Amino acid sequence: MSHNTFGHLFRVTTFGESHGPALGCVIDGCPPLIPLDVADIQAELDRRRPGTSRFTTQRREPDEVKILSGVFTDERTGRQVTTGTPIALLIENVDQRSKDYSEIKESYRPGHADYTYDVKYGIRDYRGGGRSSARETAARVAAGAVARKIVPGITIRGALVQMGPHPINRERWDWDEVLLNPFFCPDSEAAAFYADYLDGLRKDGSSIGAVLEIVADGVPPGLGAPVYGKLDADLAAALMSINAVKGVEIGDGFAAATLRGEENADEMRPGNEGAPTFLSNHAGGVLGGISSGQPVICRFAVKPTSSILTPRASVTRKGAEAEVSTKGRHDPCVGIRAVPVGEAMVACVLADHFLRHRAQVGDGVAWPFS
Amino acid sequence: MSHNTFGHLFRVTTFGESHGPALGCVIDGCPPLIPLDVADIQAELDRRRPGTSRFTTQRREPDEVKILSGVFTDERTGRQVTTGTPIALLIENVDQRSKDYSEIKESYRPGHADYTYDVKYGIRDYRGGGRSSARETAARVAAGAVARKIVPGITIRGALVQMGPHPINRERWDWDEVLLNPFFCPDSEAAAFYADYLDGLRKDGSSIGAVLEIVADGVPPGLGAPVYGKLDADLAAALMSINAVKGVEIGDGFAAATLRGEENADEMRPGNEGAPTFLSNHAGGVLGGISSGQPVICRFAVKPTSSILTPRASVTRKGAEAEVSTKGRHDPCVGIRAVPVGEAMVACVLADHFLRHRAQVGDGVAWPFS
Amino acid sequence: MSHNTFGHLFRVTTFGESHGPALGCVIDGCPPLIPLDVADIQAELDRRRPGTSRFTTQRREPDEVKILSGVFTDERTGRQVTTGTPIALLIENVDQRSKDYSEIKESYRPGHADYTYDVKYGIRDYRGGGRSSARETAARVAAGAVARKIVPGITIRGALVQMGPHPINRERWDWDEVLLNPFFCPDSEAAAFYADYLDGLRKDGSSIGAVLEIVADGVPPGLGAPVYGKLDADLAAALMSINAVKGVEIGDGFAAATLRGEENADEMRPGNEGAPTFLSNHAGGVLGGISSGQPVICRFAVKPTSSILTPRASVTRKGAEAEVSTKGRHDPCVGIRAVPVGEAMVACVLADHFLRHRAQVGDGVAWPFS
Amino acid sequence: MSHNTFGHLFRVTTFGESHGPALGCVIDGCPPLIPLDVADIQAELDRRRPGTSRFTTQRREPDEVKILSGVFTDERTGRQVTTGTPIALLIENVDQRSKDYSEIKESYRPGHADYTYDVKYGIRDYRGGGRSSARETAARVAAGAVARKIVPGITIRGALVQMGPHPINRERWDWDEVLLNPFFCPDSEAAAFYADYLDGLRKDGSSIGAVLEIVADGVPPGLGAPVYGKLDADLAAALMSINAVKGVEIGDGFAAATLRGEENADEMRPGNEGAPTFLSNHAGGVLGGISSGQPVICRFAVKPTSSILTPRASVTRKGAEAEVSTKGRHDPCVGIRAVPVGEAMVACVLADHFLRHRAQVGDGVAWPFS
Repeated sequence: MSHNTFGHLFRVTTFGESHGPALGCVIDGCPPLIPLDVADIQAELDRRRPGTSRFTTQRREPDEVKILSGVFTDERTGRQVTTGTPIALLIENVDQRSKDYSEIKESYRPGHADYTYDVKYGIRDYRGGGRSSARETAARVAAGAVARKIVPGITIRGALVQMGPHPINRERWDWDEVLLNPFFCPDSEAAAFYADYLDGLRKDGSSIGAVLEIVADGVPPGLGAPVYGKLDADLAAALMSINAVKGVEIGDGFAAATLRGEENADEMRPGNEGAPTFLSNHAGGVLGGISSGQPVICRFAVKPTSSILTPRASVTRKGAEAEVSTKGRHDPCVGIRAVPVGEAMVACVLADHFLRHRAQVGDGVAWPFS
Repeated sequence: MSHNTFGHLFRVTTFGESHGPALGCVIDGCPPLIPLDVADIQAELDRRRPGTSRFTTQRREPDEVKILSGVFTDERTGRQVTTGTPIALLIENVDQRSKDYSEIKESYRPGHADYTYDVKYGIRDYRGGGRSSARETAARVAAGAVARKIVPGITIRGALVQMGPHPINRERWDWDEVLLNPFFCPDSEAAAFYADYLDGLRKDGSSIGAVLEIVADGVPPGLGAPVYGKLDADLAAALMSINAVKGVEIGDGFAAATLRGEENADEMRPGNEGAPTFLSNHAGGVLGGISSGQPVICRFAVKPTSSILTPRASVTRKGAEAEVSTKGRHDPCVGIRAVPVGEAMVACVLADHFLRHRAQVGDGVAWPFS
Repeated sequence: MSHNTFGHLFRVTTFGESHGPALGCVIDGCPPLIPLDVADIQAELDRRRPGTSRFTTQRREPDEVKILSGVFTDERTGRQVTTGTPIALLIENVDQRSKDYSEIKESYRPGHADYTYDVKYGIRDYRGGGRSSARETAARVAAGAVARKIVPGITIRGALVQMGPHPINRERWDWDEVLLNPFFCPDSEAAAFYADYLDGLRKDGSSIGAVLEIVADGVPPGLGAPVYGKLDADLAAALMSINAVKGVEIGDGFAAATLRGEENADEMRPGNEGAPTFLSNHAGGVLGGISSGQPVICRFAVKPTSSILTPRASVTRKGAEAEVSTKGRHDPCVGIRAVPVGEAMVACVLADHFLRHRAQVGDGVAWPFS
Repeated sequence: MSHNTFGHLFRVTTFGESHGPALGCVIDGCPPLIPLDVADIQAELDRRRPGTSRFTTQRREPDEVKILSGVFTDERTGRQVTTGTPIALLIENVDQRSKDYSEIKESYRPGHADYTYDVKYGIRDYRGGGRSSARETAARVAAGAVARKIVPGITIRGALVQMGPHPINRERWDWDEVLLNPFFCPDSEAAAFYADYLDGLRKDGSSIGAVLEIVADGVPPGLGAPVYGKLDADLAAALMSINAVKGVEIGDGFAAATLRGEENADEMRPGNEGAPTFLSNHAGGVLGGISSGQPVICRFAVKPTSSILTPRASVTRKGAEAEVSTKGRHDPCVGIRAVPVGEAMVACVLADHFLRHRAQVGDGVAWPFS
């Protein structure tokens, strides 16, 4: 991935700092004639928007998106559609609360990019984390809303499956439940537990990590490539590029290391129209870097919010000792709002690989003997 | 990453099938005047070479590498050096044992890319896995041998830290031990256990997964970029692109999800020449996508070898039921030989980011107030 | 070059249609700590701005640019500087005069992209040419204003050297004159002639082509690469990507085809500090794809404006016969305003290659025996 | 274009020096199931091969190509076809005549890349020009032979249309004649003249430039993109990247600058199946960066061979005065053998854009109202 661009054919370039006038993205390579309204994008942004529950930052950002280019009315249908030219999306920053940045300006917050930014560039926009703020992920979610429309028949959903050391009970998984609690949690009992758990952490001035899972249903077989263009390699990069992510898994992930060959093999039986039916999905829908037609399943681990009230030892820009604690308006568990971000990244990667596959092989599936 | 190329400025393109005449790679963008002999590359290839112990495949491949281009004698020193032009490396396939491929040709091996290849391309070179064979990783190791020479003062080492459900004891970690056992294992007691364990698995006609860890010492601070060009995002893609890898972690990885903010924060104290000294390394040497100067630490999970003697249910290309078992010469734990491959991928990513950083910021480190 | 992005390390992505709400660009990969004010960019835009003389379109666009991201105050100097993060520039469209587009909507204007757009995408924003409008070049000029600051000591100037069949007299070349007439013409006598010539063409409802020349002084030797990354190959693509350009030359260009080897050879004599002094510059400052330290000289040919009053035979979208003539506010010689656009493209290419060279070889010039 | 790679989806990476063991290329992104034999590639190489007439270099290189990967037998047809994996092609250097390189090693040949190489990299393989030798173009021709098979129904032919100041008579254009004379010249009378003309130049120890024209028939409409991904921009870069090329034109090229709008407009009339019939082709088959369905026509200018017997003033690497003349086996008009090279580059660009278009729009042509 380039500095601020990802994707080969469905290419997303984002820009903007936390406390600058605006942030946004340019999507290049989108196919033409795809219906696209502001409302489609706004709906996704609203899922990521801060301040919707007491468990997320109280920064008040409406995150209203404007489409600056790349769409036009299709007179055959009267609908607004993509034209194949770059789609520029703009979100103005509204709640740049005037604040005292003197501490963050002079001292490096542990766990943040403050020091590494300064040592790389020799300068940084320290206000609210600047470019490394999680606000950048709004642009990803906006791009993802477009990406979701590229692969016919696809559904991409995400869920929080672990908070701190507390996993959900997968037997209670209910996708509808994800819409009903502020944690994107598919297990209602776990969600109730997390509410109390997070209240306690907030009172302690602490924070906690989480594990998220993204599931893409309806992915056609054949997306990806055997070596470096593997679908899972691009998924790993896309998810690891989200702020605070420290680990990525496909299918069984690290648990696959504990399995024997006969346990890990996803056996096949004849299915519809010659395509095999798989009897399990340890692989997470990707074999040899190429989608198998099974659901694509990824998980990623998000570290605890680094901005905490508890003071931590640090240094100033000039090399003196400092103690840093952050009073601001921060998510006690940044992992929560990473759910729509993870969905968006998976949507963008799948859209990109759909176009890459179509480029090399054409619209039809290449099938040897059917 | 493109289909068969990775890296932006230190770019590696590989080619070749398991049973074709040769495999190899072209390295583009290598700086000039770097001493490079065949022996440098051969030494790394010999670490990955099959058939060096009873725990790896008995295929007899000398993996002798030839340098076809990109080097010349520097008359000032008499040494062979890089010239800045593409370095092409060629490894001929020697032990393409004539074998009956009729079963693998007609039936899809569970856990392999056989089905996904066919459904993507409509054809595949089924001999030995063709392009999806782990033999391709020889080209990665060759490229990595060049990459190791790019970043001054860097050391990249790898180790097997878990086989099946059995992790090493990290308190016994000894890098010298890695050179002394056939598992690249830094814990001699674990290595002794793994020998027995693997003998048992082989007798059962089974296989097992593993977890590998790569550590890069001496990485200068400032490599990477804040958003999509994150160092850890590229590391994740590079490691996930290795055959059979299902998970990648940086630093504490998935364990970071279980930590509280104050536990996860790597505190800093004033160090040498104004640079901070970190009191811990939960981050694995990467903060906000940019290297911090601490060791870069990655782990990746390798699934068990899919080629096993135990029969598994499958289908034929024509959609009929089949049972598949593999008699061939396979590694019971492909994770073992993935250690030098993982090192090579990390070396390539770091070399690439070293050049990318130098492009944007120049030779010197940008440091605001020292 | 990608669809809407060019450059490898100094990467420019543009967006926007002629009659949409705004156009702009995102510049990625810019080095940090480069002083950059809105005024720097506005000054370049004002050179390209329409409506500044009777010889260009009377569309009234102030082309006021806003910097949305990528800059911050350097407290050491109090100046606004780049931060190394993406620089987003926005120009709102103001004079989207309400107009009857029914003709252009239904019929394809000869010489325009109307037909090819429709046949490619199945839809187009026909208002003012949509994405293929020359308004897009405002974003190039804005990006070029940033690019000019990357290579130390460089000067990039352009001039109109031919209008229709009438070349300037090169013996009267005076760079100061370029600033004094509305044609960017370095020959005052030719400029006077062009004024009358163009008045006549406008009265006829016609238009005319032109040849432009861009000269970059102070280009350090060593930029470019020997094979596909040739400096001149990237210059050719960059200039050919400007609307209406049909030909590109480096140095003597097509005239080189008529020369004998001994005429074309740029002889050398010992110069300062071991670097050769060239006795001529047939090569236009590029030898084997790499800059020689001589001025880099490019020329490009711009076809006549396709929007003319004279009716031309065409077809409608539905395949019926049509006659098309354009009444709008068009430049009778689009080549004139292509001068700052050409400068901007050359500036971007040189900035990109400066960073690419620094990546591979470092800050210092590699010089074998000095 | 990257250093040694070009194309986005049909990607060609070349390697090799003039006097190294071998040169070659890796083609990535080729669609599967395309019939491909060594003979297909060899036939194209034989057209470029040196030593086939007295008008080209007498270096004796059989240029025998081997396919190392990326092909397999399609059992349905018994033919060898592409598999979608990288196609590596290898050409061994045979006639590396032992020669005294002391002069070229110490002194910079005017018109060559000797000086710019050294100043860029600090080292160069001076034997026969190393990487900047025209031998590299053999790899391009080999890749072009594959590229020709990608776009259904396409024909790509090239011709020499001017030698020195002597153009052909276009009224005598006969494609069959191109195959009959050693100049790829479509005008038999011009060819006869060129034979004498070139004999004279060789006797003088001189050389001469040329202009070549490439015509692609059967290019489907819709290839290219409106802004930076213009088909003609990529053609310009591809042709300018050929050694010794100093100018590129599309359609009328520089002559378009002399035309009035009504002369330049390619008028349209209703044609077959709703597609327009163009009444002229000033545009050279590209409108707004997108192919129109007309023949794509490019021209490029090649400078005279820089290696001449006539001594020229130069300097040594150490900065002393020198006189350089070249005795070797050189083409007096390198433009001649650039014809198959230009065809190959055009073939590669068209193949790449065919895949890029298919990625964005799918197999069918998007056509709004038919």
